[in-house]
Amino acid sequence: MKFACSQSELNNQLSSVSRVVPTRPSRPVLGNILVKVDADSQSVTLIGFDEVLGIESRFDAQVDESGVVTLPAKLWSDIVSRLPNEDITLETNEGGTTVTITSSSGHYEVRGLSAEDYPALPTVEARDAIALPAEALLDGLKGSLFATSSDETKQVLTGVHLLSERDTLEFAATDGHRLAVVQTLDESGATRSTEVTGMNVTVPAKALRELERMIQAYTSNQPVLVRLDEIQVLFDLGPQKLTTRLLEGQYPNYRQLLPKQFARQITLDRRVLMASLERIAVLASQKNDIIKISLNSASQVVSLSVEAQEVGSGREDLPAQISGDDLDIAFNVRYLLDGLKAFDSNEVQMQCNAATSPAVLTPLGETKITYLVMPVQIRG
Amino acid sequence: MKFACSQSELNNQLSSVSRVVPTRPSRPVLGNILVKVDADSQSVTLIGFDEVLGIESRFDAQVDESGVVTLPAKLWSDIVSRLPNEDITLETNEGGTTVTITSSSGHYEVRGLSAEDYPALPTVEARDAIALPAEALLDGLKGSLFATSSDETKQVLTGVHLLSERDTLEFAATDGHRLAVVQTLDESGATRSTEVTGMNVTVPAKALRELERMIQAYTSNQPVLVRLDEIQVLFDLGPQKLTTRLLEGQYPNYRQLLPKQFARQITLDRRVLMASLERIAVLASQKNDIIKISLNSASQVVSLSVEAQEVGSGREDLPAQISGDDLDIAFNVRYLLDGLKAFDSNEVQMQCNAATSPAVLTPLGETKITYLVMPVQIRG
Repeated sequence: MKFACSQSELNNQLSSVSRVVPTRPSRPVLGNILVKVDADSQSVTLIGFDEVLGIESRFDAQVDESGVVTLPAKLWSDIVSRLPNEDITLETNEGGTTVTITSSSGHYEVRGLSAEDYPALPTVEARDAIALPAEALLDGLKGSLFATSSDETKQVLTGVHLLSERDTLEFAATDGHRLAVVQTLDESGATRSTEVTGMNVTVPAKALRELERMIQAYTSNQPVLVRLDEIQVLFDLGPQKLTTRLLEGQYPNYRQLLPKQFARQITLDRRVLMASLERIAVLASQKNDIIKISLNSASQVVSLSVEAQEVGSGREDLPAQISGDDLDIAFNVRYLLDGLKAFDSNEVQMQCNAATSPAVLTPLGETKITYLVMPVQIRG
Repeated sequence: MKFACSQSELNNQLSSVSRVVPTRPSRPVLGNILVKVDADSQSVTLIGFDEVLGIESRFDAQVDESGVVTLPAKLWSDIVSRLPNEDITLETNEGGTTVTITSSSGHYEVRGLSAEDYPALPTVEARDAIALPAEALLDGLKGSLFATSSDETKQVLTGVHLLSERDTLEFAATDGHRLAVVQTLDESGATRSTEVTGMNVTVPAKALRELERMIQAYTSNQPVLVRLDEIQVLFDLGPQKLTTRLLEGQYPNYRQLLPKQFARQITLDRRVLMASLERIAVLASQKNDIIKISLNSASQVVSLSVEAQEVGSGREDLPAQISGDDLDIAFNVRYLLDGLKAFDSNEVQMQCNAATSPAVLTPLGETKITYLVMPVQIRG
């Protein structure tokens, strides 16, 4: 195996792929990155895999000799990231698993392991691909990922549920306290194929966070191709691919949680509300993060307040468009802020019925996000 | 107590003073910041103190009513940092220890504690002040602090020794493995007073790191005034003051460690050497951070190399000006990098005698730093 490429290209590729390489691998070879060098296509493919989530990344290189090997992810990345930005060459020695990295500054030998012991990435059973615009995927991920559960025992709640129906793809995430649902509409018609109907899977948040990062760096205007089977999903971004095992189990029937109608509706400036909540949250952090929202319909003012016994209290009044009767309703301020940060609209709408029934936040803008938050019960 | 000031001014002051407030105070009041508001001078003074190190900071404000109180450092800073950048007012309520912070966005009540229970900052017995140019102090701190010991049991080695003689002030720090000595010469004559002679104290690194930060933000061209007694030192930067207890105990006689002459001398580009060492350090981290430096006088080349069994190896050759015979000498690469980072010259000189005797690094530039590093013994 022998190839030459630019240090910056290899560095970018390594930092992307090594993110999924486990720091404490179950077998030594899983702490490595698989390197496949192909003279015919003059390309190098890197693979990182933690036995659930895998990333494969291909880039052009000047290949003199094909070959495969695995190299320790961290050590290799750490050396390459510090090399001068110029062309560097990588070549296996006679033994076949030690690679010499040569740049103008010197040379490094890094001991690898045979590629034979590296597991193959799971394949997805042949089936037509679903084409999704990168932008729609990104909107869906940004609007839902924050609401997934970080508690590994909650199984299916640690993922985002993807549900396709005709020309919409719905992303849903809930941790039991709040629920985010994003409907991405595909105006270009790219998802209006028959294949998109029938996607009904839960994808681990960990994999989707990597996918989100990959799409943010994705410069092509080609759609992302999604291939599915019963246990695995593959997101194909052209030179970069991400594959992950799906989460097993029935996803909760979240749609039944969404109230059909609301007695109260409030419209607020999103950034002003966020800034106020951030301040109120300082004191609320001393008291289970609970804050109170009071609607004053007559003065068209929303008051945010916090009472933290022994520590202090705070109150801010915000102008708002309020319809419906006055109400005091309390929330975990962290849940409100999580949702508001994921929106990108100028204004936000809050709808609710009573102090003990769920409220729904929605951004007034392009992306259709429905964010349901359960209120907290307060005394008196 | 009542005063008004700009949010940004108060925010800056709080972030400076709250750095010394302990997160786990031995008494609740020590988790607070003392606030002294003076109508006569139209100024506010904030004090943070951890019973060893204290910072006092004064700033102008529109004071309506004098008074003193203490407020919880973190909570207060967190709220102020999130307020809009405009004038805000702070006022005690009738009880005297709860302060209402009012901005256009709303108002916050923060419960404080009586200033009566807050300990007074230690005073330094009256004695003439030593005037030191801020620049000289900064050079001394930057060139020595990195070499102090972080092991609290090493007592006097956790500080920097300050020794004044005629028109020089010497900073020394050692952790037992390496020694940094900085001589700052005062060309302006500001330290050429009789008072400067006789400073011979060890100041805790923790306090000096705060002093370094304060001097970096110091915009005045006035010298820093240093007041000393047997147990305490006060650095007076005008509106900001830092005081700390001195470290007790005899500082090692470090001058006797410095070799009088050297058989070998090497001059290298500092940044090139650092970049090479950073790369070599990646592999060295797998092997006690030990690297080998080989001098080749005939070719005027310095080779840096590392052999990490089972992991890999590396070698870089750097052009250098070498005088003296060839030599292989090994070091902890972290120690070399610490020193090279603290220098700011283009070139660095390394002097040594043998593979088992100390080497000395010096920057070829304005600041006079002598950095002694003990080599590591290597096999044949």
